[in-house]
Amino acid sequence: MHRAIYYKGNGDLMTEITQDEYAAALQDTQGVLWVDFTGEETESSEQILLHTFGFHPLAVDDALHETHVPKVDDWEQYLYVAMHAISFTSGTEDLEAIELDTFLGNNYVVTHHDLPIQALDRIWDTCTQDVRHFKRGADHILYKLTDELIVDYMKVVESLDEEIELVEDEVFSRPSAEIVQRIFTLKRATLHLRRYLSPLREVLNKLARDDYAVIDAKDRIYFRDIYDHLVRLHDISESLRDLVGGVLDTYLSVINNRMNDIMKTLTLITTMFMPISFLVGFYGMNFFQPSFQALLPWTGRTAFIMTLIVVIVTPIGMVFWMRRRKWM
Amino acid sequence: MHRAIYYKGNGDLMTEITQDEYAAALQDTQGVLWVDFTGEETESSEQILLHTFGFHPLAVDDALHETHVPKVDDWEQYLYVAMHAISFTSGTEDLEAIELDTFLGNNYVVTHHDLPIQALDRIWDTCTQDVRHFKRGADHILYKLTDELIVDYMKVVESLDEEIELVEDEVFSRPSAEIVQRIFTLKRATLHLRRYLSPLREVLNKLARDDYAVIDAKDRIYFRDIYDHLVRLHDISESLRDLVGGVLDTYLSVINNRMNDIMKTLTLITTMFMPISFLVGFYGMNFFQPSFQALLPWTGRTAFIMTLIVVIVTPIGMVFWMRRRKWM
Amino acid sequence: MHRAIYYKGNGDLMTEITQDEYAAALQDTQGVLWVDFTGEETESSEQILLHTFGFHPLAVDDALHETHVPKVDDWEQYLYVAMHAISFTSGTEDLEAIELDTFLGNNYVVTHHDLPIQALDRIWDTCTQDVRHFKRGADHILYKLTDELIVDYMKVVESLDEEIELVEDEVFSRPSAEIVQRIFTLKRATLHLRRYLSPLREVLNKLARDDYAVIDAKDRIYFRDIYDHLVRLHDISESLRDLVGGVLDTYLSVINNRMNDIMKTLTLITTMFMPISFLVGFYGMNFFQPSFQALLPWTGRTAFIMTLIVVIVTPIGMVFWMRRRKWM
Amino acid sequence: MHRAIYYKGNGDLMTEITQDEYAAALQDTQGVLWVDFTGEETESSEQILLHTFGFHPLAVDDALHETHVPKVDDWEQYLYVAMHAISFTSGTEDLEAIELDTFLGNNYVVTHHDLPIQALDRIWDTCTQDVRHFKRGADHILYKLTDELIVDYMKVVESLDEEIELVEDEVFSRPSAEIVQRIFTLKRATLHLRRYLSPLREVLNKLARDDYAVIDAKDRIYFRDIYDHLVRLHDISESLRDLVGGVLDTYLSVINNRMNDIMKTLTLITTMFMPISFLVGFYGMNFFQPSFQALLPWTGRTAFIMTLIVVIVTPIGMVFWMRRRKWM
Amino acid sequence: MHRAIYYKGNGDLMTEITQDEYAAALQDTQGVLWVDFTGEETESSEQILLHTFGFHPLAVDDALHETHVPKVDDWEQYLYVAMHAISFTSGTEDLEAIELDTFLGNNYVVTHHDLPIQALDRIWDTCTQDVRHFKRGADHILYKLTDELIVDYMKVVESLDEEIELVEDEVFSRPSAEIVQRIFTLKRATLHLRRYLSPLREVLNKLARDDYAVIDAKDRIYFRDIYDHLVRLHDISESLRDLVGGVLDTYLSVINNRMNDIMKTLTLITTMFMPISFLVGFYGMNFFQPSFQALLPWTGRTAFIMTLIVVIVTPIGMVFWMRRRKWM
Repeated sequence: MHRAIYYKGNGDLMTEITQDEYAAALQDTQGVLWVDFTGEETESSEQILLHTFGFHPLAVDDALHETHVPKVDDWEQYLYVAMHAISFTSGTEDLEAIELDTFLGNNYVVTHHDLPIQALDRIWDTCTQDVRHFKRGADHILYKLTDELIVDYMKVVESLDEEIELVEDEVFSRPSAEIVQRIFTLKRATLHLRRYLSPLREVLNKLARDDYAVIDAKDRIYFRDIYDHLVRLHDISESLRDLVGGVLDTYLSVINNRMNDIMKTLTLITTMFMPISFLVGFYGMNFFQPSFQALLPWTGRTAFIMTLIVVIVTPIGMVFWMRRRKWM
Repeated sequence: MHRAIYYKGNGDLMTEITQDEYAAALQDTQGVLWVDFTGEETESSEQILLHTFGFHPLAVDDALHETHVPKVDDWEQYLYVAMHAISFTSGTEDLEAIELDTFLGNNYVVTHHDLPIQALDRIWDTCTQDVRHFKRGADHILYKLTDELIVDYMKVVESLDEEIELVEDEVFSRPSAEIVQRIFTLKRATLHLRRYLSPLREVLNKLARDDYAVIDAKDRIYFRDIYDHLVRLHDISESLRDLVGGVLDTYLSVINNRMNDIMKTLTLITTMFMPISFLVGFYGMNFFQPSFQALLPWTGRTAFIMTLIVVIVTPIGMVFWMRRRKWM
Repeated sequence: MHRAIYYKGNGDLMTEITQDEYAAALQDTQGVLWVDFTGEETESSEQILLHTFGFHPLAVDDALHETHVPKVDDWEQYLYVAMHAISFTSGTEDLEAIELDTFLGNNYVVTHHDLPIQALDRIWDTCTQDVRHFKRGADHILYKLTDELIVDYMKVVESLDEEIELVEDEVFSRPSAEIVQRIFTLKRATLHLRRYLSPLREVLNKLARDDYAVIDAKDRIYFRDIYDHLVRLHDISESLRDLVGGVLDTYLSVINNRMNDIMKTLTLITTMFMPISFLVGFYGMNFFQPSFQALLPWTGRTAFIMTLIVVIVTPIGMVFWMRRRKWM
Repeated sequence: MHRAIYYKGNGDLMTEITQDEYAAALQDTQGVLWVDFTGEETESSEQILLHTFGFHPLAVDDALHETHVPKVDDWEQYLYVAMHAISFTSGTEDLEAIELDTFLGNNYVVTHHDLPIQALDRIWDTCTQDVRHFKRGADHILYKLTDELIVDYMKVVESLDEEIELVEDEVFSRPSAEIVQRIFTLKRATLHLRRYLSPLREVLNKLARDDYAVIDAKDRIYFRDIYDHLVRLHDISESLRDLVGGVLDTYLSVINNRMNDIMKTLTLITTMFMPISFLVGFYGMNFFQPSFQALLPWTGRTAFIMTLIVVIVTPIGMVFWMRRRKWM
Repeated sequence: MHRAIYYKGNGDLMTEITQDEYAAALQDTQGVLWVDFTGEETESSEQILLHTFGFHPLAVDDALHETHVPKVDDWEQYLYVAMHAISFTSGTEDLEAIELDTFLGNNYVVTHHDLPIQALDRIWDTCTQDVRHFKRGADHILYKLTDELIVDYMKVVESLDEEIELVEDEVFSRPSAEIVQRIFTLKRATLHLRRYLSPLREVLNKLARDDYAVIDAKDRIYFRDIYDHLVRLHDISESLRDLVGGVLDTYLSVINNRMNDIMKTLTLITTMFMPISFLVGFYGMNFFQPSFQALLPWTGRTAFIMTLIVVIVTPIGMVFWMRRRKWM
């Protein structure tokens, strides 16, 4: 599916514009055309991007076929910007990311993505109701779009932070194997987040500093503003990674501490009952009346004294043996 | 709430100055005006910042609505500086930070924060009693303010250092699950500290080196002095992070060492009493007078010899089995 | 073995070209000659590379004798590029890498490798059927070759990612010593991958940015495209390394958690049966009818009371002793 | 206390020079004056530094009141250099560091420190006996001083290295909780060492490369020489940090290995004696002559068979239960 | 001991050249003189280096007295290069390194080392038999020497790699305390290797890129070739460090896994025999015929019922108590 809005140079807004009218709209240097492809078939989008807009085959290839880290390519007449809309639901397996490819020209914006992006829809709706955004030029549309995407990044970072705090609390109150799995999932999510966040920061840095033909010099300050937010998000996400690592180490310490308690109890019980069990066993000896005569000498005085000696010497010998192994 | 001090170019100091007089004060290029907003409602502050002072909407947005890492933005006629007042009480959950947004013009300083900041109040009080600070210009007020904030950073770093030393001592004397929680809290606090310290150092580096219209070139040396302190604080805070990580590793080692001791005791007790308990059990055998006839053969000579064989062969077999599993 | 394709300036394609015709082909500045050595004997290749193509002895040495990290050397008339074709089969010991040495001149490409490389064979086959690649120049052949190699890198990165996910699942469901071995093998593979990926990225960066005589300025954009892919692969491979490390930590946590469960069971069983076993033992005491007279006093009232006292005092003493050792 | 040496331009050496003569000495551009403050009261030193030498209040503040990482400040007429004399005694708690603040002018050196520094005293003594150092200018005094300080750094690095080797040996021969404490102390010491070493290296790099008015261009080679030593010390100290971390990991492995041995012994003993203890217990059963009639059926044939069944079924059931929990 | 070879400008080679003839040889700008000091006494070498060759005292000091990381100093008329010959024998304690100090002039090479270096001897022997190396100038001698040293670096890296693989295999097949010691020794060796390799790479980078008077511009390509090898060795050595760290982590996991097995066995045995041992003990109770009258009520019906109740209630109570401590 693809759709378009066309803000005419004379101030009119057209929301029903067909593919054939794109070429004319592109000639209107005062107007702004925004075309959005959502899950459109590759052949059809390729056709429009290559022939109507005249984008370079490599750029179109990047947009339609391939996965990228966020990047910005300067093709002089237009910019190609790859970004991602991300979301994270607590309890889910991983971060979800949808690639958003944008072409920014002097008087047009083309966006392409495989799945619907809520942040983009919000901006689209605003634009259909309010022409002010268009009045400030095509680059302002890109700014609004990026700004809206960043809001979702903030939410993800906050969700991760809360999730880590929850997991951390459970590590102390109820350490379990299931917690380890959640920690690992969080580790994966923070690693993925960094994979999008870190190059996106560089993209915004470029948009804020470099001299692109299609970005008005006085609009760069808006991209700078987003860049500042990304710097903060990046710093927080680095802390999150450190914290997740710390939570796993903590888990190991907590579980070992608990094991310590368990072993103490076991040792206490054993230490309390083994000696006295031996004692009552000692008085349980029969020096028995054997049921056949040949065993009689087993119960005699000599046997008893030998038994006593063994009972006394064995534990002492054990202690010495252990001392030689440096255990005491 | 907001308040103001106005040092007139002719040397007078006005502490009771209304909002309407700000515009006039701004015309007095020899004077210095300091306006401080503490927890003021957004609408009212926005009004003054946008219209009386004429700050850029993005800068006002940064100051009133948003959270930032420390940064400095050059808006030519004025600087926007975001910093944080921090505090840490031993035993509390985390570092507390209050964002302080400052606008520095040629002849004015505007500070904005949501909660009262003690460091700022101290400087405010000094300024109402002593006009010397104002004589040296608005940038000197920013210097004094930053310098006072840094004093709190030093205290926090020292508190953390002491806390780590305390925790470390307890790890050796009384390792417990509660200690792990304190270590984790300290880890969080050092990570947060770094989040403020590291970009703040960059802010001071810029103030000390870059050529800003509103900072007198010969005053940069003062910001350089603060920068040097921040370099040291940053180095120490990096060591603290390493130390906190080390404390957790140490905890694990200590707890494992203790477990070793516990297991040695358990093994000692078991090793001492199991053999002799068996011995007394051996002599406790009845080769009993069964209460019914069919059991008679169980107590005969053959049964006794079989028992003896099992008693001798079983432990030897166990040893061989263990040796095959490479446990001995 | 070596083979050659010669695209004549006039549009003809010769696939049967002997070694003696190389020199003539090199004079045809409009044509493109591609010579490929696969496991050729060193003496024979050396002869051709040194005398027919006139490459520098050091460059030939690099290509024929030595192992290198990926690199690009500019010899003005030609480039020497070292790359690797890699593959990874899940379950195998390690990453397999075949060094591919390429010389790129204005109108020729020379490739040298010890073992057959599938990616290269695919391009070779395409080139014998379709002269379009040759029409765009020798540098385009290098681009196609590199692009095809990168496809294999992507597959390897994906295999590693899947393998890590598999291993991670098994860590939680069936932790065993064999899993540790697989984790270690994965760690080795990700380290090896980085050894090829990281310098290869730099090679492509140079091909995309530097001004080489044999690469057409307008073709650099193609190398830039590959570079972008490598940036992404590199980012992912860094995450993989972090994840592999995380899996090992997770394993340790899971195994310790499991040990905790085991110890709990042991302690539970011991705690349940030791006290009652003692009790039944107590009632098993004979205060026996000794088989000789001298033992009579052992069964008297005093002996019984002494026994009772020991039975009561011993566990209490144990508890106190343990408390002094700070175990309770 | 403060003391001074004054090498007159005419070659005479004055070791008894009063505070009042400093001003005159400073006028003698051919001479060299060295004033050293050791634990002098702040007011008195401040007086001399501010008024006699005319140093900037910030620089004097740095020297007298504050703690710094090593740094060099260029005040054009003079340099302010902060360094540290360090020492480490094996077995002590931590590295000891004394801040040494130096002002270097064209014809004077001023040193300030709170506690006596042996390295400085050695140079002082050499200078009172031999005027050659003074002949080469004030910057040469700074060089000799720094060179002598570095000797102590080398000793500290060597002590730490030896201490680590000792601790490592003990980890293998006698792992104990006390060893963990020593490892942690070493970790702290190496972190502190880095805090001094790393910025000091930068200071020497600046002295060796930057163009300072008070350092003769041809003398920079001497500072370069010290810089080279610091590079090496820094590299070694980084290795030391890695090694200390490795020692702690090793400790954990050794202690776990030992625990393994202990548990093997415990398991061996238990495995050997539990089955045979059961066996002798089995033959110890009375199927007793109850002291009251109602218990008679407990010893009958049915009871015996039931007991046998339980004795056989229980262990088999246990094994199945454990297998279901995946323990076998 | 020192020895010399002198290749005269006219093509003759003198291997018997006395110290007095050095000065004349240095005048022969077409010739090449190589003087090699092996464990020569400091005074004697100092004499020659300072006076015959006229090296700067600092450079001579570096060569004769001090230990350095690899470095290159440009003294305009000559270069001072510090490198190390290294060797590693599997099973030994550590890497062995011999410092090799080289002075390279336009027509001479001076090498100084305390112990014989095999790589140097090999080059020396080649040079006495074949004048070709001399024909290409003194810088070519340095190249051959460095190239030969690097061969040993490769061997060391390979030995370490094999050793790590061996140790890794043993970790899985026979984990023992002795293995931990070997891992730690390997860690030390890889850290030491990096201490030599990393700055040596920088030295070669400088020799390959910088414009030194004594290195012919067209010979730089040879040093570039060595540099490329060092880049690869450095990359491998970084992987080795990561692998060694991984082996220790793996060891811990393997040992914990083994402990798990041991504990399972212990728990299995205990779980199997404790309940049935209790059972047979129960039937071993006497409700005995006391040897004195006062004990008669202990064996009555009430006592038996009380005993039964305790036997039933105790384990149930234990389970509840454990559940409250969250162990089940």
